[in-house]
Amino acid sequence: MTEPLFHRVAVIGVGLLGASFALAARSRGLAGHVAGVGRSRENLERAVSIGAIDEFTHDAASGVRNADLVVLAAPVGSLSAIAESVSGSLESGCIVIDVGSVKGGLVSNMESLMPDGVSFVGCHPIAGGSTSGAGSARADLFVGARCIITPTAGTNPQALAKVESLWRALGSTVEIMEPDEHDRIFAAVSHLPHLLAYALVGAVSGEDGLMLHGGRGFRDTTRIAGSPPEIWRDIFGMNRDNLIASLDRFETVLKRYRALIEASDFDTLCAELAKAREARESLENG
Amino acid sequence: MTEPLFHRVAVIGVGLLGASFALAARSRGLAGHVAGVGRSRENLERAVSIGAIDEFTHDAASGVRNADLVVLAAPVGSLSAIAESVSGSLESGCIVIDVGSVKGGLVSNMESLMPDGVSFVGCHPIAGGSTSGAGSARADLFVGARCIITPTAGTNPQALAKVESLWRALGSTVEIMEPDEHDRIFAAVSHLPHLLAYALVGAVSGEDGLMLHGGRGFRDTTRIAGSPPEIWRDIFGMNRDNLIASLDRFETVLKRYRALIEASDFDTLCAELAKAREARESLENG
Repeated sequence: MTEPLFHRVAVIGVGLLGASFALAARSRGLAGHVAGVGRSRENLERAVSIGAIDEFTHDAASGVRNADLVVLAAPVGSLSAIAESVSGSLESGCIVIDVGSVKGGLVSNMESLMPDGVSFVGCHPIAGGSTSGAGSARADLFVGARCIITPTAGTNPQALAKVESLWRALGSTVEIMEPDEHDRIFAAVSHLPHLLAYALVGAVSGEDGLMLHGGRGFRDTTRIAGSPPEIWRDIFGMNRDNLIASLDRFETVLKRYRALIEASDFDTLCAELAKAREARESLENG
Repeated sequence: MTEPLFHRVAVIGVGLLGASFALAARSRGLAGHVAGVGRSRENLERAVSIGAIDEFTHDAASGVRNADLVVLAAPVGSLSAIAESVSGSLESGCIVIDVGSVKGGLVSNMESLMPDGVSFVGCHPIAGGSTSGAGSARADLFVGARCIITPTAGTNPQALAKVESLWRALGSTVEIMEPDEHDRIFAAVSHLPHLLAYALVGAVSGEDGLMLHGGRGFRDTTRIAGSPPEIWRDIFGMNRDNLIASLDRFETVLKRYRALIEASDFDTLCAELAKAREARESLENG
């Protein structure tokens, strides 16, 4: 029998991502033992029953004891407080990773909170779904998905290599990126689209029954407005400056479209739409 | 053998909607004979080969001769010119319908172009897809779909009743609406979302390779930016005032979100997002 990559894994936050990670790691023999940490007993019991975790606790500090891998899979806004509370209980040699959608400030904060001998490696698997909770966990959630890893000058090279192996073993394609670069990019392609989807629903839902007329296009465009607001409050808050910069770029384009509509210059508008369509089509074929 | 609802149907514009209409009407025995009118011989031959139309012509005026139903399924921006060119060839008793996404000005314009004894009834089946051309036609495209019919004070009641029967026989749910009300509603739930999707792609595609980082959320949100720009140029142009009013409402909400982000008032923002999410969720469950 091969040695598992990690002997004892603690997953803090056993939602869709955390439970899927645990399930995927266990089913591939990458984790010897998995402890889950969370608040809802019902959800944690569910995670045990589907075979994602071996045991659970509500106390993060005791959950991480003896772990050689700690996975922070709670909402990004709570990770600093969690890191502070577990810091004194982490074993030397332990690797701590997260799975959050923001990296820049979070990564440097996490690094500063790790005790000597403990390595933090920021991770952002581009995976998820419209469901939540351990009950929606899938062992193949990360298969074929990209996972952005954001090491810094201070990242331990052995820890980084091990985390890369881990994600590859889970079926993901690993991409290395600077934390700040990550946040700049995801402000544009993820955080801004979420903000716009919420705003579109906010604008249309002001009138009773109006939204019910929406067809498939409206449903597609606003699907992500069904995401938990607390998660996005945290992400928007932690990536505020990049989000504002992305919003600036969007508003510049929208203002240009608007001016063309107001001037009834629909042929110039059409040329703009054609450029956007071409870009969007290249994504579909890429 | 039952009499078909219409003996001779002319479909002008044999794309996804026109060819699907023809295929659906023929397969249900609603149309005795269907003539297709279009520009591309290849596409028209395709429509014949899949059994959507019996014959075709490039000349709209000869295509509508002896028809008791004419279906205008060309881009909305071209319908006035088409109506003018066929007007002299329409038989008394003929019903003319369209399947376009704008109604207000178009309907009154169409009504004014119809010769005596010919009735125009505006229709907007909420159906479509990301594919185009006769080759993507589906006999069940309208099954379970809503079809908005927009009669006016001048609409012939018998013609209206027959058009309602037609859409019901195609499997659609018929909804009657004022033309202007239709345009106000669809500016909000369809035309604005399309404009925003184009603008989002326009904003993000400015930087090489950035868009490739987009995950499922980005793809969903921008899918409709893959729509043909000429179609949307026409729709935006024909529903300009309502589109601007919808854009005003969207910008008001986005401005509020932006101010909260700039003020780092993320709890108030979260409350706004929660309202939007609740509205969006009610749509999913509705």
